[in-house]
Amino acid sequence: MIEFCLVGGGFIGPLHAANIAAHPSARLAWVVDLDLAAAEKLAGKHGARATASLDAALADPAVGVVMICTPPRTHTAIIERAARAGKAVFCEKPVDLDLGRVDACAKVLEATRTPFFVAFNRRFDPSHRALFDAIRAGDIGRPEMLVLSSRDPEISPPDYVAAMPYGIFYDTMIHDFDMVRWLLADEPVEITARTACMLDTTENPHRDPDTAMVMLTMASGALVHVNSSFRAVYGYDQRIEAFGAKGMLISHNHQPTLLERYDAAGIRRDPLLRFFVERYAESYARELDDFVRAIGAQRPPTIGLDDGRRALRIAEAAAASAKSGKSVALG
Amino acid sequence: MIEFCLVGGGFIGPLHAANIAAHPSARLAWVVDLDLAAAEKLAGKHGARATASLDAALADPAVGVVMICTPPRTHTAIIERAARAGKAVFCEKPVDLDLGRVDACAKVLEATRTPFFVAFNRRFDPSHRALFDAIRAGDIGRPEMLVLSSRDPEISPPDYVAAMPYGIFYDTMIHDFDMVRWLLADEPVEITARTACMLDTTENPHRDPDTAMVMLTMASGALVHVNSSFRAVYGYDQRIEAFGAKGMLISHNHQPTLLERYDAAGIRRDPLLRFFVERYAESYARELDDFVRAIGAQRPPTIGLDDGRRALRIAEAAAASAKSGKSVALG
Amino acid sequence: MIEFCLVGGGFIGPLHAANIAAHPSARLAWVVDLDLAAAEKLAGKHGARATASLDAALADPAVGVVMICTPPRTHTAIIERAARAGKAVFCEKPVDLDLGRVDACAKVLEATRTPFFVAFNRRFDPSHRALFDAIRAGDIGRPEMLVLSSRDPEISPPDYVAAMPYGIFYDTMIHDFDMVRWLLADEPVEITARTACMLDTTENPHRDPDTAMVMLTMASGALVHVNSSFRAVYGYDQRIEAFGAKGMLISHNHQPTLLERYDAAGIRRDPLLRFFVERYAESYARELDDFVRAIGAQRPPTIGLDDGRRALRIAEAAAASAKSGKSVALG
Amino acid sequence: MIEFCLVGGGFIGPLHAANIAAHPSARLAWVVDLDLAAAEKLAGKHGARATASLDAALADPAVGVVMICTPPRTHTAIIERAARAGKAVFCEKPVDLDLGRVDACAKVLEATRTPFFVAFNRRFDPSHRALFDAIRAGDIGRPEMLVLSSRDPEISPPDYVAAMPYGIFYDTMIHDFDMVRWLLADEPVEITARTACMLDTTENPHRDPDTAMVMLTMASGALVHVNSSFRAVYGYDQRIEAFGAKGMLISHNHQPTLLERYDAAGIRRDPLLRFFVERYAESYARELDDFVRAIGAQRPPTIGLDDGRRALRIAEAAAASAKSGKSVALG
Repeated sequence: MIEFCLVGGGFIGPLHAANIAAHPSARLAWVVDLDLAAAEKLAGKHGARATASLDAALADPAVGVVMICTPPRTHTAIIERAARAGKAVFCEKPVDLDLGRVDACAKVLEATRTPFFVAFNRRFDPSHRALFDAIRAGDIGRPEMLVLSSRDPEISPPDYVAAMPYGIFYDTMIHDFDMVRWLLADEPVEITARTACMLDTTENPHRDPDTAMVMLTMASGALVHVNSSFRAVYGYDQRIEAFGAKGMLISHNHQPTLLERYDAAGIRRDPLLRFFVERYAESYARELDDFVRAIGAQRPPTIGLDDGRRALRIAEAAAASAKSGKSVALG
Repeated sequence: MIEFCLVGGGFIGPLHAANIAAHPSARLAWVVDLDLAAAEKLAGKHGARATASLDAALADPAVGVVMICTPPRTHTAIIERAARAGKAVFCEKPVDLDLGRVDACAKVLEATRTPFFVAFNRRFDPSHRALFDAIRAGDIGRPEMLVLSSRDPEISPPDYVAAMPYGIFYDTMIHDFDMVRWLLADEPVEITARTACMLDTTENPHRDPDTAMVMLTMASGALVHVNSSFRAVYGYDQRIEAFGAKGMLISHNHQPTLLERYDAAGIRRDPLLRFFVERYAESYARELDDFVRAIGAQRPPTIGLDDGRRALRIAEAAAASAKSGKSVALG
Repeated sequence: MIEFCLVGGGFIGPLHAANIAAHPSARLAWVVDLDLAAAEKLAGKHGARATASLDAALADPAVGVVMICTPPRTHTAIIERAARAGKAVFCEKPVDLDLGRVDACAKVLEATRTPFFVAFNRRFDPSHRALFDAIRAGDIGRPEMLVLSSRDPEISPPDYVAAMPYGIFYDTMIHDFDMVRWLLADEPVEITARTACMLDTTENPHRDPDTAMVMLTMASGALVHVNSSFRAVYGYDQRIEAFGAKGMLISHNHQPTLLERYDAAGIRRDPLLRFFVERYAESYARELDDFVRAIGAQRPPTIGLDDGRRALRIAEAAAASAKSGKSVALG
Repeated sequence: MIEFCLVGGGFIGPLHAANIAAHPSARLAWVVDLDLAAAEKLAGKHGARATASLDAALADPAVGVVMICTPPRTHTAIIERAARAGKAVFCEKPVDLDLGRVDACAKVLEATRTPFFVAFNRRFDPSHRALFDAIRAGDIGRPEMLVLSSRDPEISPPDYVAAMPYGIFYDTMIHDFDMVRWLLADEPVEITARTACMLDTTENPHRDPDTAMVMLTMASGALVHVNSSFRAVYGYDQRIEAFGAKGMLISHNHQPTLLERYDAAGIRRDPLLRFFVERYAESYARELDDFVRAIGAQRPPTIGLDDGRRALRIAEAAAASAKSGKSVALG
C-alpha cells in the first residue's frame, strides 16, 4: 500500500483524492492546504489527516508519495522539499513557469534520486493511446502532419489568468506540446504562434490571449498544427489527427450519451462532455495506476521532469513567437 | 439510339423523361397521356411528340420501348398492347394489384417474346448494391437476419389511397419485398404482418393502414423484419441491415449535405433527403442505363415479370395476414 | 451504511461485489456460495465473510439486503428465505422461469412487506435512459414503433443452455421485454415469435434457438420488433430505436475507443464493446445506487416483482408462439 | 441558348463539356486544341466543331462564351484574345502564375467590359455552401478560427510539377485561399507557410514541396490554418471547419456509398471519393449554371478576376514565406 500526501485541496485535488481512494494499492494519508478547512473537508471524506503544515506531513514516515496539486508557481519549492524528505513526487503540470527553476529543481531530484512524475494525463486517454499505439505499429507509416484541436469551454477566473500570462500556452497547450512530443517521438525545431483576444472585456478583463494557433516543424520534418480557444460553447473539444504516408488516424471527441434525435429540424446529438474532469476521468485514474505501478516496481515513472521541462520550453517559445511576431528556433 | 414512348406524364414520368434525355443511347420520342395538355408539356421539354392515343404512338415503327408510368391498375392492359405491337416494355412497379391479371399478362409477354423490365429502382442504389455485393462476396457469411426500415415522409393523397387499399404493402413495402428476395437470393415461406392507423382522420380519412411491421421466414431459415410508416417527419428513411455468421452490413440513410453544426444545444445535421425523387435519383438513372444496355445487347432485362409477380404475392400475403391476424404460408 | 449478503459468487457476482465496495453507502458483509472456496475468494477481496450456509448469513442482524446472483431456478426459494428473515432483496433477472413460482413468491413478499428489486440493469444505461426521458418529454410525440437489436457475441456454455430451454427469450430478450414495457409505459396484447438454429452443432449442441425475431402489438396499438442472435462477431450489439409522430430516437452502440483509422482500404473503427460487463458497466453501478437510495429512503425499489413477472410472461408467450407457429394473446 | 467555345480538351475539359451538354441553356459549339485529334474526339461526342485555331472559333459570331481549360501559363493570352473578340470568359483557376500578367489582363477586361468568371468550383459544393450560409446567418457568431484540410491522393505528373514550382500553393491551396476569403468575407494581413518533401524521389523527382501547412491572420483578427498533402492514400480529403463565438461548423468528407461493414476486426466504411472529379461533380455543374444564369441575366459573374488575383497573391506570399522562413505581410 502506497500512502499519499496530497498538497493542494482545491482545483484538481479532490479528483485525484477519489482516484487514490479507489486504487487497490494506494491510500490517501494526508491532505495539506494552507486553508485548513479545505484540507479537513477533503481529508474527512477519505479518512485522511489534514494539516496546513507541509512539514508535519513530510515528517510522517508512512508517506511514500507527495502529490502536488497547488498553483504552478509553488510547484518547484514543494518538489524540492518532498525530495529532500525522501518522498516520491507526483506533480500536476506545468512543473513551473520558469525554466531556470525547473533546471534547479532537476538538480535536487537528481541528487536525491527522487522518483518524479509530471501528470500529463492525456497520454492515458484510451482513444489517444490507441492513436499512439497505431503510429508505433506503423499503421500510417512515417507521420507527416499532426493536427490538434484543444479548446476549453470557458476561460479561467480573472485572478488565475492574471497569475499566468499567456496561460493559453503555459497551461492549456502545454498538454498538446507534450502530446506532440510523445505521439511523434520527436522534438520541434521551430515554432510560430499567433494569438487573439476574442472574448469581450467582461469575460477576459486582462486581455490575455484567449485564442491561439501554433505551427511547429519537427526534427524529422513533420509539420504540426495546434489550435486552442477558451470558449467552445459546445463543450470540451479535444481532437487529434495524425497523417502519414499510409493513412490517417483521428481520435474523436467523446459524448455523454450516444442518443441521436431525429425530427423535422434535423438530426441532433448531445453537446460534447463539459470539461476535462468528465472527458479525461478515465485518464486520471489510469495515470495514477501507471504511477503507482512504477513506484511499486521501483521503476522510474513514465513521464519525468525532462518531459515537463521540454513542454515548458515549447510553451515559452510559443509565447515569445506570439509576442514578437517571429518564428522561434528550438532544438 | 433506342426510342422511348413514355405513357403517363404525371407522377414519376417527368423524372424518367429527364433520364432518357440525358442517356447517350436513348431518346424520348413520344409522351402519351389522356390529359393531352400534360403530354404536350412534358413532350415539349424534350423535343418529343405528344398524343392522347397510345395506338398512335405504338404505330410509330421507330419506337422500340414503351415505358409505363400510369397508375398500377392500368399497367397490364398497356403492357399487352405494347407487347402485341412488338415493343419492349419498361414498367413501373407494381406490375398490377391482381395476381390473375399478372399471370394473364405473363402469357402475352411469353407468346410475343417481349423484353420486359419492372422498375424496382432500389436495386440500383449504390449503397444498397454495395450491400448486395458484400453478401455475394461472402463478407458476412450465411445471412441470418435482415432488417429493413422503409418510411415515407407523408401519406399519398386520399384518392390515391382509396384506389389502392393496403397500399403500405402493395405500393411501398413491395419495394422491400423485392429487396429481400434480391439481397438474400431466397424466397419467403411464411409472413406475418401487423398494421396500425396512427395518422389522424384529416391526414388519413380512409383509415387505410399507415404504419406496418412484417416478419418473414425465408426458405433458408433466415428471418426478416420490415417496418414502414407514412410520416417520418425527419425525411425519407431508407435503411437496410443484413446480419450473418461473420458480421453485419448496414446501408445508411443519405443526407443533402455533410455539414455538422455544433452549438450549446448540441450537434446537428440536416434532416434526411426529402423523398424518393431525391434519395434515389442515382438509382433511377442507373436502372434506365441497365435496361438500355440489356435492350441494346438483346439480353433479357435484369428484373423480369416474375420478379414483379413474386413481390406482389408477398404484398398480397402481407395484406391477408394483417386482415386475418394469422400468419400466411408462401412458397 | 447498508450491509449486503451476496448469494452466488460466480457469473455476475464479482461485478456486483465491486460496485457494492465502491458505493459510499453500501458494504459487502457476506458472500454465500455452496462452493465455499469461491465464496472465500470473493469475500477475501472485499473484507467480507464467506459461508456455504445461507442461514448463517441471514442470521446476521447487520445484513440489510440479500443480493441474489445464483442461477434463475434457485431465485424464488432464496427470495422467500430472505424475505422471511426480514431482509430486503436485490435479485438478478429473471425472477424465475415459472410463473406459478413467481406468483407464490409474490405472496410471501407481500405478507412480509419485503422491499424487492429485480435487476433490469439496462434501464440505468445513460443512453437508453436519455431515450426514455426524450419519449417522456414528448420529443417524438406518441410512440408508434419500437425496434430493438439485442445480440450477444456468443452462446452460453452447453450446460447453461440445457438448463434453460428457449433461453433466447427467458434470459436474453427478457431484458428487451422489460425495456419495451418501460420505454412505452404500455403492455403488449399480442406476440408472434420465430426462431432459428444458425450455429453449428459444435457451438449449439442442444439445438436450442440461437436466433430470434419477435413482433409485439401494444395496448396503444404501437408495433414493436425485437431481434436477437448469439453470435454477433463484431461485439455486443445493443440498439434501441423509437419512432413516433414527431420524430425518431436511436440509442447507438458504444465502442472502446473513438479512434478512426483511414487507409487505402477504407475507414475503420474498433469492434463494439465485447459484452454486457463492458457495455453496461455504468448501468450496474447506477442500478445499485438507485436501489441503495430507495432502501435508504424507505421507498419501494423502482423495479419490482410485478415487473419481473410481466417480462417473464412475455418471454413465456414468445416461447409458446415460436413452438406453435401461432400468435399468442397477452393481456 | 448560350454557345460555348471550349479551349483545351484535356484535363478538366471533358468534364466541363459534359456539363455544358447537360445544361438546358448552354450548347458546346467549338472545341479548340492544338492537338486537333483531341479536339475532334471531344467535339464529336457532343456534336460540336473542332479546330486547332482559336481565331477560327472566335470568328464564329454565335459563340458567346470562351471557356479556358488550358494550362495556367496560357490563360491570360487566351483571355485577352477572347475579350477582344467580344466573348464572355469562363476561366479555370489559377488565372495565371504571375501577378503582373493578371494586372495587365484586368485592364483588357475592363476596357472591353468583358464578363469574366474564374472557376473556383468549391464555392458551389452543397456542403461548403451550407457552411457559408450558416456563417452568414450568424449561426456561429463572429468567426474566430478556420481550419481547412485539403489533401490530394497523388502528386501531379513530373512535367506538370516542373512547369509550376510550389504548385502546392499555386495550384492546390489556391482553392483554399479563395475559400478563406469567401467564407470569412475578409482578407488576410499576414501569412506564414512551411513545406516538406515527404514523397520519395521516384514519385517527386523535382523535390517540389508535396506537404504544406499555412497559418493566416485575417484583418478581423481571425486565425486560419490550411494543410495540404499530395498523398492521402485514403482518398481526396476535403474538410472545412469554422469556429466562432457561438459554435462550430464542419463540412465533412463525402464517400462513394454509405455502407458500413461490421466484422470481428471492427467497423469499416469505404475510402473517400477518389479525387476532385468525383468529389466536386455537383460543384462543377452548379458553377456552370451560376455562370450561365449570370450571362443570361447580364449580371457580372459571381467570381471575378479580382478574386483570382487575390487568391494568387496569397499563393505567392505563401511560396515566399516557405522559401524565406519568414512571415509575409499582405494587405
